[in-house]
Amino acid sequence: MEFDLIECIGRHCALARADVVLGIGDDAALLAPPAGHHLAVSTDTLVDGVHFVHGTPARDIGWKALAVNLSDLAAMGATPAWALLALTLPHADHAFVDDFAAGFAELAAPHALALVGGDTTSGPLAIGVTVLGLVPAGQALRRDGARVGDVVCVTGTLGDAAAGLRWLDEAVAQREAVDPTSRAALLQRMRRPQPRVAAGLALRGLASACIDVSDGLLADLGHVARRSGVGIEVAADALPASPALRHACDGALRVRLQASGGDDYELAFTAAPERLDAIRHALEAVDCGVSCIGTVVAGSGVRLLAADGSAIALPSAGWQHFA
Amino acid sequence: MEFDLIECIGRHCALARADVVLGIGDDAALLAPPAGHHLAVSTDTLVDGVHFVHGTPARDIGWKALAVNLSDLAAMGATPAWALLALTLPHADHAFVDDFAAGFAELAAPHALALVGGDTTSGPLAIGVTVLGLVPAGQALRRDGARVGDVVCVTGTLGDAAAGLRWLDEAVAQREAVDPTSRAALLQRMRRPQPRVAAGLALRGLASACIDVSDGLLADLGHVARRSGVGIEVAADALPASPALRHACDGALRVRLQASGGDDYELAFTAAPERLDAIRHALEAVDCGVSCIGTVVAGSGVRLLAADGSAIALPSAGWQHFA
Repeated sequence: MEFDLIECIGRHCALARADVVLGIGDDAALLAPPAGHHLAVSTDTLVDGVHFVHGTPARDIGWKALAVNLSDLAAMGATPAWALLALTLPHADHAFVDDFAAGFAELAAPHALALVGGDTTSGPLAIGVTVLGLVPAGQALRRDGARVGDVVCVTGTLGDAAAGLRWLDEAVAQREAVDPTSRAALLQRMRRPQPRVAAGLALRGLASACIDVSDGLLADLGHVARRSGVGIEVAADALPASPALRHACDGALRVRLQASGGDDYELAFTAAPERLDAIRHALEAVDCGVSCIGTVVAGSGVRLLAADGSAIALPSAGWQHFA
Repeated sequence: MEFDLIECIGRHCALARADVVLGIGDDAALLAPPAGHHLAVSTDTLVDGVHFVHGTPARDIGWKALAVNLSDLAAMGATPAWALLALTLPHADHAFVDDFAAGFAELAAPHALALVGGDTTSGPLAIGVTVLGLVPAGQALRRDGARVGDVVCVTGTLGDAAAGLRWLDEAVAQREAVDPTSRAALLQRMRRPQPRVAAGLALRGLASACIDVSDGLLADLGHVARRSGVGIEVAADALPASPALRHACDGALRVRLQASGGDDYELAFTAAPERLDAIRHALEAVDCGVSCIGTVVAGSGVRLLAADGSAIALPSAGWQHFA
């Protein structure tokens, strides 16, 4: 454990939580989970040039490294509590670490998340974050609860982050006639995803299954279908698009970005149709939009359907980690 | 999350624990910690060419990635329970993953540790492991409890792993007249460190402070001294050496390997002198050797002393992460 660097990060994230018995600076952190709760634990790694474009500002990397992990907790309906950070750096770059920590802390603070441990090692730039959250026993949202007849919904809008990546190069954006305002909005969603933590909590007891959209809507719904032993049909026309995305593109490109672009960090979930009203109210209360985009059917796999009911084939079913 | 690879690893580590509500395959694992316990959580990353020699067998990497993390739990006096794995691989090499998982599982099984989650990403080879252990509330061993007058002890022997690294190259070993049997024993300790989990549990209620020796004895005792607000004096003559190390070298080289070589994963701890008998019995019961190597004194820092009481200067105070 490289104390200087982790303690420097710890200072940015100096949040006092009564359930942190011992934080950064010993062989392990000591935490006191509350009775009657399950721990939700997840880990995700971001690699330079794979999960973010080489040269991304350190502050954005810090934010995103935590965001993608909080998104996993959101998908479980868990309340974030603690995190550990494994930072691999080519060299001890204190300016990078400071900016990284500031971005990490910027997202940690509103979630009252405490950084309780970690290590820094030398090597090619990569960031591993482990998050721990709490959920009352038996109330977690899982992937295996979708039932035939359920509706399929998604929070917010889809495709912005993938569009931001497509138009990261300003020359490409100009060539494809994307206006600067839309481009800026799309880039912001790519760089600063907002994990749907409040929406996940609101969906407890209402959604039958839930997943966060990281690899791409269809790929992620594929996990729900497989774990639940069902099929899923999605209506391409129903996929929600932000004003920026609608402004920037339409047709097949827009659908492709929405259905398989990934990096959205929205929640895709299923629910019994009679729960829909309650869900709309619960999500409205946390200022989160929701769209019904499909149905759970008997069978297996995920199909994307055009308005006439024909299946739409996409070039890729989602993000391939080792493509 | 790359399911194929993580589920392949999960099959190697398919351990049923009643406290795993939901394991690999959802957005997060769900765990049920027992009442009255604190969670001990630690994360450590191994990078190819930094923490292990490039070309190390995958099975040894799998073992060591878990061992260095279990060693952190051992130093807290915590019982290992669950782990998450973040595996970064240059390409989807199933043979590597299989061997890696076998080595990981080989060490996980005797500790009844369940792998409950993880992700695999593409990038330069690196392995991040997060371990979670359990310790009755208030009984954890910490770094900040050393008191003036305490004795300083260490389990097992020191310097073997660093010696193994020095003589990894057979030509160097031959040139320095290291016999093949000793060399094999030293290499084995470098490749397959045995975390002192049972010793850590045995030291609960007996040790006043504890740390695992990963960066090098003096560097790690430095953390204890700093956190406890004390100084530590270590007698070079008292440092325990294995038969293989004694056979392979002596004098200043041996002392240097023992005092600052690192990668030992023994436990260095302090205790009130009147506890020494109980400690010897408790460690003997778990088949773990122990040596008294020094004293806690007023002041700060760590001094290595020769038999005549003079201070010994070492070229390096321990493993430097960004040297």
